[in-house]
Amino acid sequence: MSSFIPTPDDRFTFGLWTVGWQARDPFGDASRPALDPVETVHRLAELGAYGVTFHDDDLLAVEPDRDKAIEAFRKALGETGMKVPMATTNLFTHPVFRDGAFTSNDRDVRRYAIRKVMRNIDLAASLGARTYVCWGGREGAESDAAKDVRAALARYKEALDLLSQYVLDQGYELRFAIEPKPNEPRGDILLPTIGHALAFINELEHPEMVGLNPEVGHEQMAGLNFVHGIAQALWHGKLFHIDLNGQHGPKYDQDLVFGHGDVKSAFFLVDLLEHGGYDGPRHFDYKPLRTEDPEDVWVSAAANMRTYLILREKARAFRADPEVQQALAASRVDQLAVPTLAPGETLADLAAEEFDPDAAAERGYHFTHLNQLALEHLLGARGGAAG
Amino acid sequence: MSSFIPTPDDRFTFGLWTVGWQARDPFGDASRPALDPVETVHRLAELGAYGVTFHDDDLLAVEPDRDKAIEAFRKALGETGMKVPMATTNLFTHPVFRDGAFTSNDRDVRRYAIRKVMRNIDLAASLGARTYVCWGGREGAESDAAKDVRAALARYKEALDLLSQYVLDQGYELRFAIEPKPNEPRGDILLPTIGHALAFINELEHPEMVGLNPEVGHEQMAGLNFVHGIAQALWHGKLFHIDLNGQHGPKYDQDLVFGHGDVKSAFFLVDLLEHGGYDGPRHFDYKPLRTEDPEDVWVSAAANMRTYLILREKARAFRADPEVQQALAASRVDQLAVPTLAPGETLADLAAEEFDPDAAAERGYHFTHLNQLALEHLLGARGGAAG
Amino acid sequence: MSSFIPTPDDRFTFGLWTVGWQARDPFGDASRPALDPVETVHRLAELGAYGVTFHDDDLLAVEPDRDKAIEAFRKALGETGMKVPMATTNLFTHPVFRDGAFTSNDRDVRRYAIRKVMRNIDLAASLGARTYVCWGGREGAESDAAKDVRAALARYKEALDLLSQYVLDQGYELRFAIEPKPNEPRGDILLPTIGHALAFINELEHPEMVGLNPEVGHEQMAGLNFVHGIAQALWHGKLFHIDLNGQHGPKYDQDLVFGHGDVKSAFFLVDLLEHGGYDGPRHFDYKPLRTEDPEDVWVSAAANMRTYLILREKARAFRADPEVQQALAASRVDQLAVPTLAPGETLADLAAEEFDPDAAAERGYHFTHLNQLALEHLLGARGGAAG
Amino acid sequence: MSSFIPTPDDRFTFGLWTVGWQARDPFGDASRPALDPVETVHRLAELGAYGVTFHDDDLLAVEPDRDKAIEAFRKALGETGMKVPMATTNLFTHPVFRDGAFTSNDRDVRRYAIRKVMRNIDLAASLGARTYVCWGGREGAESDAAKDVRAALARYKEALDLLSQYVLDQGYELRFAIEPKPNEPRGDILLPTIGHALAFINELEHPEMVGLNPEVGHEQMAGLNFVHGIAQALWHGKLFHIDLNGQHGPKYDQDLVFGHGDVKSAFFLVDLLEHGGYDGPRHFDYKPLRTEDPEDVWVSAAANMRTYLILREKARAFRADPEVQQALAASRVDQLAVPTLAPGETLADLAAEEFDPDAAAERGYHFTHLNQLALEHLLGARGGAAG
Repeated sequence: MSSFIPTPDDRFTFGLWTVGWQARDPFGDASRPALDPVETVHRLAELGAYGVTFHDDDLLAVEPDRDKAIEAFRKALGETGMKVPMATTNLFTHPVFRDGAFTSNDRDVRRYAIRKVMRNIDLAASLGARTYVCWGGREGAESDAAKDVRAALARYKEALDLLSQYVLDQGYELRFAIEPKPNEPRGDILLPTIGHALAFINELEHPEMVGLNPEVGHEQMAGLNFVHGIAQALWHGKLFHIDLNGQHGPKYDQDLVFGHGDVKSAFFLVDLLEHGGYDGPRHFDYKPLRTEDPEDVWVSAAANMRTYLILREKARAFRADPEVQQALAASRVDQLAVPTLAPGETLADLAAEEFDPDAAAERGYHFTHLNQLALEHLLGARGGAAG
Repeated sequence: MSSFIPTPDDRFTFGLWTVGWQARDPFGDASRPALDPVETVHRLAELGAYGVTFHDDDLLAVEPDRDKAIEAFRKALGETGMKVPMATTNLFTHPVFRDGAFTSNDRDVRRYAIRKVMRNIDLAASLGARTYVCWGGREGAESDAAKDVRAALARYKEALDLLSQYVLDQGYELRFAIEPKPNEPRGDILLPTIGHALAFINELEHPEMVGLNPEVGHEQMAGLNFVHGIAQALWHGKLFHIDLNGQHGPKYDQDLVFGHGDVKSAFFLVDLLEHGGYDGPRHFDYKPLRTEDPEDVWVSAAANMRTYLILREKARAFRADPEVQQALAASRVDQLAVPTLAPGETLADLAAEEFDPDAAAERGYHFTHLNQLALEHLLGARGGAAG
Repeated sequence: MSSFIPTPDDRFTFGLWTVGWQARDPFGDASRPALDPVETVHRLAELGAYGVTFHDDDLLAVEPDRDKAIEAFRKALGETGMKVPMATTNLFTHPVFRDGAFTSNDRDVRRYAIRKVMRNIDLAASLGARTYVCWGGREGAESDAAKDVRAALARYKEALDLLSQYVLDQGYELRFAIEPKPNEPRGDILLPTIGHALAFINELEHPEMVGLNPEVGHEQMAGLNFVHGIAQALWHGKLFHIDLNGQHGPKYDQDLVFGHGDVKSAFFLVDLLEHGGYDGPRHFDYKPLRTEDPEDVWVSAAANMRTYLILREKARAFRADPEVQQALAASRVDQLAVPTLAPGETLADLAAEEFDPDAAAERGYHFTHLNQLALEHLLGARGGAAG
Repeated sequence: MSSFIPTPDDRFTFGLWTVGWQARDPFGDASRPALDPVETVHRLAELGAYGVTFHDDDLLAVEPDRDKAIEAFRKALGETGMKVPMATTNLFTHPVFRDGAFTSNDRDVRRYAIRKVMRNIDLAASLGARTYVCWGGREGAESDAAKDVRAALARYKEALDLLSQYVLDQGYELRFAIEPKPNEPRGDILLPTIGHALAFINELEHPEMVGLNPEVGHEQMAGLNFVHGIAQALWHGKLFHIDLNGQHGPKYDQDLVFGHGDVKSAFFLVDLLEHGGYDGPRHFDYKPLRTEDPEDVWVSAAANMRTYLILREKARAFRADPEVQQALAASRVDQLAVPTLAPGETLADLAAEEFDPDAAAERGYHFTHLNQLALEHLLGARGGAAG
């Protein structure tokens, strides 16, 4: 068994706001002090992370002067070799955004939001970020009377078109990644799922510059299968970035440690990321539990990475297991890659084919065996060791 | 108060399988006898419906001979003037489809599925249908090991591309409408929401021929706001057809009478359909409760239409109410249609603008008043009578 | 139609923390200033409320000196005639309660929690409160390893037994009301539903002193039927108090205005409260939307009461409508009150009875008609009564 | 590592209706032939099961003559040594039960239901069953107007009181176990959760004769923590029986193989069952996937037992691990068993205690480390034990 010790090659990244979360929740005051981004960079580097990400406001957690805060942050990056592959904008904490940012009914707010993003894009680019995430957590409504959704989508598009043009004009090598979420803090958020965001992107001026940053818990809050969602995003060529964490189904956004929600789904997710062509950072967007003290925070950060590495090893063993390969073939999983129409075949040929559906219906798919094999790989109950 | 009596001008349609549902459920046997499609056509015509829709197999409910069944059905249509604006294929009842139709791991099944659709497209076209619905209820999986989702999407695309070509080759005036659903009867269904299906369409050979047939309950099973979903579908120009019914949140697919689920959402939906540019049929895809007898079935059919008409009148009154118009303006709902950047303005101009977010954050949005006005219109508690 | 203007006879009450909510949420800072409890008492009195309720800490919102704050509060009550029928303790905001209060793994915290409640019970009793609510929002866990649930229930029982004894010893006329909630702010909260709390009460030393304070949204967050829950609580004689608000199914705790969630359920709830023997206050536990300004807050407070009164009138009209009475009889709703065994009848008699289930299965229940009548009463779409 | 081969000592039991499910679902016809109960008994015995359970109607799956069917079933039991620890009644398949059985609005149906149960109780007792399960799947409603819930609970109580008396009169050693479920096939089912059923039992004439048969998926359909529910049932002394299976959150009732839903919850469940004093059968109430053929059915049956055994070994290793014991102590999990009030201490003593909540709030709970240890035991990723 490998040691499951992360290194920068594993490309693990964390938001400053994750370990830095002070554990203020809708019913409770902060339970931890503010964390200096400089300390975060050093601690995460020691744990084996590859980089950090940030909202503009995160940098000011303990140093209110922006220039000083940026300078200290750059210095820490230099000392540790940590990267900043992604950045984003806080368009949700300040009450000015209470009806949204790009889609606020208040045009002044929409203008301010775009300005705030532009400013942080400059910083992100200067720090080497290649992905700029847009989470529109306040873009939504609690009443269907309060928001003209079609107008809102038009404004959303306008904002992304303008920002894409800005990036092009500045010559930045930056792509946008939309992060969907169904609700919370708004009753209903626009672009609530991976699907809605993918569809939206097709209407943009520069669809090639915009992809997704899906988050495990956000899709699971709608009861959707995250692995299916990621597979569809990959199919569209739009998995630009990913937020890894844990969630227990439809309820408030839990942001648990990766693997501390549905661990079997996490296993198949790692399998897909490792074997499905995704080459971006493995970004953890979680919140250390409010019960934890400042040292526990780093324990939780390490747990995310260790769990990923454990699952990665299991996914490799799963794929390599001859019995699994046999079971996949018996379930005809591989046959789905074969086009339904043969080369040169026409619909007329197809139409003429004889077929007995009753006979064909007797062929079982043996999915339970396959699923049980996956489960036993997950549980470490396979092979010689499995008894 | 108007009489709320439906006429064909209201364009209400029903699936044969709705009133014809024999009330067999996962824990119970049929509680009603099979219904003759001919009787359905006549009864629905008497109730004021505009048309009926069908799966290929629905026509054979009481007459196993396909030609005879079709002939009797055509005759009933002729006698009543009822239309068939939409048809679809049953790709889910027969066990041959137990792992899907267009995306079954079994290639023979995929071929059979396409053949089955082609055959019913011919009939649909000959009956004047303009929309052909594809509900892929069996396209999915219970285990993430059992389905290569990207391959499945490729096969799904292949099937729709072939069928689009078939329609073009035959010269039919027919468009396809995909009906998304998150789960049931499969653990996870592909294209689970309006958004996922919209995104998928963009990858097709003939995206202009394919749109959506969203169903109220299907989105609500994922806790999503159906009105938002329909607004996004309209924004993309893809609301080709709609399935109206009722649902009480994330649970099994209830297919209640329209308005018998979340009636406030139904109100805003009717408002959007009536004032948002949708001109297709108002199609009810519901199931009469299993507790009901054969006569109750027609009571339930009438209830769908009557509720729609009640809500339509309320939506008109809501839009016409000066106090509502004032409240919409006070909430700046109309301002969202104003582009964020003024004509001729540049991002540099925008960047230079002065703005005090703290001051702007003090402007309230007054959404509660607006929502309460909508609620009181819904409840008939407005106007002189409202006190 | 009546004027829907509330008076103290309607027994409407509000928590100080409701209108006083500053709109700090998990992703956002406060959007409204702190509200003086004295102002709240006066404003609510003007709107026609009967009383206010409070957590110990609520009184200190703007005046940190407890004695002064209480004195000012008493004065406002005296000036307005407002009552304090219920009080409760804040056992969730301070980080000391982050693993719970009565069931914290930390015994010192458990002791402090009991002490904090005792202190506020004294104040509550002196203000004339008859109900003391216990919402154990922090009693729970995010990991099944972290909490010994059986030990936790024993400690929960210990706390309530001690507090009951305290009330008896002091001679207060006070009963406790447990408020269940499934999750948020903890991943899983103990006593998650009406049912779990009812069961728990039976294990207490003084079960007669402890009942429930169910909240609309809390049950609906678990997808449960709130009207059914309230009916069961009434059946057990345990509906001591009630929290009215609105929610849209399983998601974060929305605390919408009463009726702004599932309004049909709200209609049946009012019907049950008005005709089911509940005689306590109608207590609103909602949060004014974060988008609203300080004046909007009072609009939202008024909306709760007005909606209740509208629904109350509709429930009365529904019950009085002869067609409804006929439909109830046709659905045999009244027959359920008839014992299954006749007086004097034995099981042997029952066993000997002849019965043809197939024939009996043909009797329809006509529930759709009944439900549609209820809906049309709700919508004001019934005959002359519709307004 | 042990071999994970089940033996009768493990007390695994299966319903005849589980492996015998023909895979008829709301959208599909049967995909497997009827299974002879005699074959089921033999096949399960070969796989290492301890016993089988049945609904009255299950016995007639292939032999319509009741006496002959019973005789053949008894013979198979005798040949294999298989036990029948539990039996139940089918009060849901026949349309006569479409509005419920014990709580149908139709009194004749209620009488028939009791009679049907009495008859099968006789058979159950004669086969040695000690538990009689009551799943009231049809006791519920789709409209709040259609059911007087308080009257329904009175009738439910009447039925259980009568049946308890019948068991006493006959001298059977049989206890009842209520199986809660929130919905499906009814829109809302009475006694929807473990809690509601526990509360209800307290109102019965013979509460000591009635306990629970909770099912994994049924609580998870309401988003509730099943392990918490089982712990509360144990705390009340009411875990008479248990239904093990898998589910993916709020959606239709999936009845997956045990462990094929939320496997981490399954781990903690096995831990609780093995170390919490439950000594009844481990009963699997699952459905083999509709995609599976008749041989796959037995693969799925075996998977349930094997997964349980794997998790049992892991739970033992978890409890035995010194690092886990240390982590439990560090999280003060054990301290919750210590009464909050010391022996001899009074509330006055407690009230006088000094306490600094701010200082106490700094003590972290270290739950993440504990949870990660549990996860790594589950994954087989702990030290030498990991294999």
